[in-house]
Amino acid sequence: MTPQAIKQALLSVLSPAEIVEDGTALLTDQRRRYTGSADIIVQPASVASVQAVMRFCFEHRILVTPQGGNTGLCGAAVSDGGVLLNLSKLNRIRHIELADNAITVDAGAVLQHVQEAAAAAGRLFPLSLASEGSCQIGGNIACNAGGLNVLRYGTMRDLVLGLEVVLPNGELVSHLYPLHKNTTGYDLRHLFIGSEGTLGIITGATLKLFAQAETVETAWVGVESIEQAVALLTAVQGRFAERLCSFELVSGYALNLSSEFSRLGKPVEAPWHVLLELTDSVRHDGLIDLLAEFLMEQGFENAVIAHSESERNELWTLRENISASQRNLGASIKHDIAVPIAHVADFVSRCGQALQTAFADIQIVVFGHLGDGSLHYNTFLPQVLSNEVYEYEDAVNTIVYENVLACHGTIAAEHGIGQVKNHWLPSVRSSAEIALMRAIKAELDPHGIMNPGKLLP
Amino acid sequence: MTPQAIKQALLSVLSPAEIVEDGTALLTDQRRRYTGSADIIVQPASVASVQAVMRFCFEHRILVTPQGGNTGLCGAAVSDGGVLLNLSKLNRIRHIELADNAITVDAGAVLQHVQEAAAAAGRLFPLSLASEGSCQIGGNIACNAGGLNVLRYGTMRDLVLGLEVVLPNGELVSHLYPLHKNTTGYDLRHLFIGSEGTLGIITGATLKLFAQAETVETAWVGVESIEQAVALLTAVQGRFAERLCSFELVSGYALNLSSEFSRLGKPVEAPWHVLLELTDSVRHDGLIDLLAEFLMEQGFENAVIAHSESERNELWTLRENISASQRNLGASIKHDIAVPIAHVADFVSRCGQALQTAFADIQIVVFGHLGDGSLHYNTFLPQVLSNEVYEYEDAVNTIVYENVLACHGTIAAEHGIGQVKNHWLPSVRSSAEIALMRAIKAELDPHGIMNPGKLLP
Repeated sequence: MTPQAIKQALLSVLSPAEIVEDGTALLTDQRRRYTGSADIIVQPASVASVQAVMRFCFEHRILVTPQGGNTGLCGAAVSDGGVLLNLSKLNRIRHIELADNAITVDAGAVLQHVQEAAAAAGRLFPLSLASEGSCQIGGNIACNAGGLNVLRYGTMRDLVLGLEVVLPNGELVSHLYPLHKNTTGYDLRHLFIGSEGTLGIITGATLKLFAQAETVETAWVGVESIEQAVALLTAVQGRFAERLCSFELVSGYALNLSSEFSRLGKPVEAPWHVLLELTDSVRHDGLIDLLAEFLMEQGFENAVIAHSESERNELWTLRENISASQRNLGASIKHDIAVPIAHVADFVSRCGQALQTAFADIQIVVFGHLGDGSLHYNTFLPQVLSNEVYEYEDAVNTIVYENVLACHGTIAAEHGIGQVKNHWLPSVRSSAEIALMRAIKAELDPHGIMNPGKLLP
Repeated sequence: MTPQAIKQALLSVLSPAEIVEDGTALLTDQRRRYTGSADIIVQPASVASVQAVMRFCFEHRILVTPQGGNTGLCGAAVSDGGVLLNLSKLNRIRHIELADNAITVDAGAVLQHVQEAAAAAGRLFPLSLASEGSCQIGGNIACNAGGLNVLRYGTMRDLVLGLEVVLPNGELVSHLYPLHKNTTGYDLRHLFIGSEGTLGIITGATLKLFAQAETVETAWVGVESIEQAVALLTAVQGRFAERLCSFELVSGYALNLSSEFSRLGKPVEAPWHVLLELTDSVRHDGLIDLLAEFLMEQGFENAVIAHSESERNELWTLRENISASQRNLGASIKHDIAVPIAHVADFVSRCGQALQTAFADIQIVVFGHLGDGSLHYNTFLPQVLSNEVYEYEDAVNTIVYENVLACHGTIAAEHGIGQVKNHWLPSVRSSAEIALMRAIKAELDPHGIMNPGKLLP
């Protein structure tokens, strides 16, 4: 069908306001790596409109790419012709039920708005990540987003109680109730979580809420090595248990970059750094003293503890500006990986050596969520021009991923697979597993119209 | 194949000690509702032995029923000919890694042994349920077990980091590493969790560990109504948040039965009762006073707080003996259901009225885990003989489940589906969902040898 014919047909089931006339910006991903195309861009304003679009596309075998806030880092929401279905207009906070500690929202609700709605009801929605001001809940679910609070609250997968999904044929599957125990057949909710728009379109979700933090204590600790950081993690968990909410690792090199970029002094000098945060949902004025005593007792004296909200913000700014501070390092190849915490030090050591052997001038920026084993492992080739970097990508990735796998880790921790990593899937999943994934896909999407070229190899 | 031929063939891949000569007791389920049959009963002592059995059965189209501790309540581990594959010999604690807060065990490890191994390492494995002294981890995973601590720690699904599974064709799929963030394709781990032995045989698991409780405070509170119990729950969560570990509802009638059976006095007199427990993994001597003040302030004065371990044990004995204390009430039809917490009072009221209209002398014992909305809803027909009760089962279940569904609940909270409830699945899952379940089953188990007649309708 021509784009004109598709538009004409969709106008019989959508209002003109649900069709985007100038959506060029939605065709390019956040990292500006991919620019796609679309015959038409729609922003359905209701679940019924999503169903109508899908029924039409299913019947006429038209490709559909779902898109949330377009903040993904793996190109999963870049369309390749057909319909780009953007969820931004489906953005209501539907319902909060305090007895069930649950909130039900549209998939297009912006993460920050969900956090704010929870806070207004005196509760916490704990998912927190860099793009929270524009990313959407549906995208967070579709890629099983992680972020800063996974150590205490889990990934998005752990926060979803119920889902509402429009299947490729337009049929609605809805389980939007806060059931904490429910085992009725194979768990299809978890199939859609992390499926990156390849099995259907998530239109709503019921999410877990938690108590808000009444006390927050934040420390920056200099350590000699990753091994020492892991020892600190184990000791903190032994002493403060679930009060440990964040435990971030920052290399000395990454701190140097961020300190200069942020125009903020370094909290301490050290080869490696840890930013840790304790929270307590019951007010606990003595927690700061307990933390200070603990760090002294354990021999972590090269440390500062924030004594005010502005001091706390400065520490977090240093952590959060690492990504932005790398921009002048040259062409970059970035990795979103995780290994068991006990293997992080071994991984960083052996992978760094292997990369330096292969690329003498490579720069490596290591930081991330040590508390859950996930690292942002960013490599820079200073002599390479930006538009040439992808020539080196496979060689760098091969070294990084081989070392990840040797350390029993994963090549995709919290950013998803998309079109960046789908050809690597056979290295982490057996042929039987991939055959099962294909069978699931074929059952739900027999014509292969949902987000083709993403996730599956 | 004749039983003799099967035995002869399996003796070429198993040791004689892996074949059970007198396994009659394993053919009948715990509730003595079902007695199955088997051509042979095997207890493989290694994962390789499980694979060898499955390869043989796959090739010769022989039915296989996996069985753990045989404590299931829905008949999922009752064999119907073929091979009964009991996991009891595969019972090692494989590995504990404190840095990752994780334990890796064989599927046949008894739950209590896993709890003990975690405690010996200074950690908590939080799953706790009545049969913990004999149920096995593999069975807990296969039915997504719940129990007393779900409010704080989640169901078994939430506790599994990695699985090792032997597929119906004997192929091994192994992901036994403690990765807290890992999104590499559709989540197949969650398909096996809750699949009740119909997709393959779980042989090992990597499980999350937590900090041990340093402080435990337990209170028994009399309330006027379920509405008041829900108000107490919301207030406790507002004040003590995740320190609330258990919140059990007990009807006045259930307490009467248990008090008499246990030869223990009733803590308080009231129409409804709540047993609640706060735990803190950081020692907190003042918690008991905070709890007492809170209950007074909120107007819950008809309450006792345990001041010693023996007082605490008495309160829990009253709760735990409810099941045993029902034995003289006559023929019973029991339900493992959950509804959103906000709907529990409405459900109990409307379902009780409907049952009493249909069966004038019906007795209803209500208790369960109000903190996560799951109830044990047990009905007794005093005039009916035990062997006649199943004539009434469909009529009672229809009333109960219709009311559950009207309250947006589930007919299977934490005991599974098995062969007791599989014909009810179409009332809670759409035909598209069941078709997808069948497609998943067909891909992994094309000959339909795995636990036929269970879970799927």
